[in-house]
Amino acid sequence: MDVKAAVAFEAGKPLEVTTVQLEGPRDGEVLVEIMATGICHTDEFTLSGADPEGLFPAILGHEGAGIVRAVGAGVTSVKPGDHVIPLYTPECRQCPSCLSRKTNLCTAIRATQGQGLMPDGSSRFSLEGKPIHHYMGCSTFANFTVLPEIAVAKIREDAPFDKVCYIGCGVTTGVGAVINTAKVEPGSTAVVFGLGGIGLNVIQGLRLVGADMIIGVDINNDKKAWGERFGMTHFVNPREIGGDLVPYLVNLTKRGADQIGGADYTFDCTGNVTVMRQALECCHRGWGVSVVIGVAPAGAEIQTRPFQLVTGRVWKGSAFGGARGRTDVPRIVDWYMQGKIEIDPMITHTLPLAEINRGFDLMHAGESIRSVVVY
Amino acid sequence: MDVKAAVAFEAGKPLEVTTVQLEGPRDGEVLVEIMATGICHTDEFTLSGADPEGLFPAILGHEGAGIVRAVGAGVTSVKPGDHVIPLYTPECRQCPSCLSRKTNLCTAIRATQGQGLMPDGSSRFSLEGKPIHHYMGCSTFANFTVLPEIAVAKIREDAPFDKVCYIGCGVTTGVGAVINTAKVEPGSTAVVFGLGGIGLNVIQGLRLVGADMIIGVDINNDKKAWGERFGMTHFVNPREIGGDLVPYLVNLTKRGADQIGGADYTFDCTGNVTVMRQALECCHRGWGVSVVIGVAPAGAEIQTRPFQLVTGRVWKGSAFGGARGRTDVPRIVDWYMQGKIEIDPMITHTLPLAEINRGFDLMHAGESIRSVVVY
Repeated sequence: MDVKAAVAFEAGKPLEVTTVQLEGPRDGEVLVEIMATGICHTDEFTLSGADPEGLFPAILGHEGAGIVRAVGAGVTSVKPGDHVIPLYTPECRQCPSCLSRKTNLCTAIRATQGQGLMPDGSSRFSLEGKPIHHYMGCSTFANFTVLPEIAVAKIREDAPFDKVCYIGCGVTTGVGAVINTAKVEPGSTAVVFGLGGIGLNVIQGLRLVGADMIIGVDINNDKKAWGERFGMTHFVNPREIGGDLVPYLVNLTKRGADQIGGADYTFDCTGNVTVMRQALECCHRGWGVSVVIGVAPAGAEIQTRPFQLVTGRVWKGSAFGGARGRTDVPRIVDWYMQGKIEIDPMITHTLPLAEINRGFDLMHAGESIRSVVVY
Repeated sequence: MDVKAAVAFEAGKPLEVTTVQLEGPRDGEVLVEIMATGICHTDEFTLSGADPEGLFPAILGHEGAGIVRAVGAGVTSVKPGDHVIPLYTPECRQCPSCLSRKTNLCTAIRATQGQGLMPDGSSRFSLEGKPIHHYMGCSTFANFTVLPEIAVAKIREDAPFDKVCYIGCGVTTGVGAVINTAKVEPGSTAVVFGLGGIGLNVIQGLRLVGADMIIGVDINNDKKAWGERFGMTHFVNPREIGGDLVPYLVNLTKRGADQIGGADYTFDCTGNVTVMRQALECCHRGWGVSVVIGVAPAGAEIQTRPFQLVTGRVWKGSAFGGARGRTDVPRIVDWYMQGKIEIDPMITHTLPLAEINRGFDLMHAGESIRSVVVY
């Protein structure tokens, strides 16, 4: 079938909106009509050429929502008409990782997904007979896509596509890092580094679980109002404190009879390895947990003195918010519909597919929290 | 009173066995007759001058066992005649750290202990009227010492001093890192880097909790028999594998339907920051936990790509095995008496105080697992 798509033909060039061909779903696959898709920094990372694993040509996009239109043989968990969110982290419920109960990093289709292919090793997208790569197992920059059954989360039908598509990546990554990875308790003290879309979702995750002190750190003062909008209690601009950031934050979080400072939980949402170190080192001795969410440039390394760990700080990371896609994503959609979390104010721009490159321009200019393409 | 002690007068010089003066216990303090003490690498670290926080003159030693001989005003938890193990990590049960239920790093007397003083800011030891520093709040290289009440663990009276003194540091550090810090489950796969005393105690901790695969890594083949003695199932000498250590260990630990390798838990017992990185990176994606136990040289830093964390590995550290001294140390003594853990074969040398410097020499020569001084 003919589908409308924004194709990334080569790194560093704008996407080209054109018509491509899509094969129907094979065994265990589903055809989904994408109704809306967010434009995420990870799409930009790959499109820019900075992603060492980027493949071209490809149909990018991994933050979508849509409707199942057809299913291949053997598909039992969804049917045509079901509303779904595509999952770049699938949930097969059968691999050692899914069965471990310790990670969301399902390995069922990892190898082929990394090669831009469906699990059988082929692509469903083509242009003039030449295959186009899938991307992160999703390719939501097309109004139809084909996905493995294990890579779709069935959601309620009254959820608006142009909002809940954001749950396909940013919302779940931020809220999930709080809930699943850090397991923040009520009353906690937390610091969030970087108040872009992920950082704001970490902040609202912290509000959801009842954190007491939610400190946002950003070098852009315009982010203060954004952070406060979602529950931030304190804002720190590292360029305006007149000293080193780590002791400043440790001092800000002093509490208790012994007046030892340090955050119970910190989150890096910047991808900057220097910030990641600050996030670890401003944790409370004995129990502070620092979660790396941001994606660092290729080859960049984090470092610290091991004394930071020996005195009780924990360094960990989070991918897709530690969420099991088919299990947890529908719950987050419910939370949005119940008003427990907010999405609408974060969707700063809604565009037609023809203007998708403007969405990337808005991101570059720092003018959007999230731009969403509606088909 | 006059006591026999081995005094560290200056860095890099042998200890001098002599008679020093000890004041009796003040409020909240206890006088303990030390019956035996181990000689630990941390004593050596300080004596060598490498410890940037080392103070001289001092009475070193922090791995002892003895008998309470007198108590100061207000002491309620122990009485003369009680058998105790001194605690360099006290347990006040009242500070925010003790009450947090998240850490063993009690802060009650941290500041004065770091200054080589009792909680009231003075020293009980002196020589010819000049004060001598306490060390790690213990100073077990003397046949009598004074300790805060919160820094002694009361133990059963049938436990032999010349063996259970090792529980004052090495045994608890190793076994505790498995039980309290990593919380290793039965059936786990683990790698232990460095098969000195701490490494061997990690190994027996892993055996105690029912780990399936216990891999020991050391560049000294003589350690293989030692590791096997305490439960090691596989030995790897990095110099003999003909390739890089991390992929070798990942391959060795491949298991499950997806044949993804990597250890569930790894422990650095070397203090070498390069080894610490290897320990993290040979962890299983999704859930592998690496615990730093070894003390690194001043200024040394660990580093890795943040991708290691984002894909689910956790980097943490352990001090005194995460054990609460007054609560957990008596339990470990019980385990020894019940035969759940072994100590006797690790005590390779028993010496009188007059020969304490020979204990350090044996350590330097790699000829001892643990030397114990008996008074």
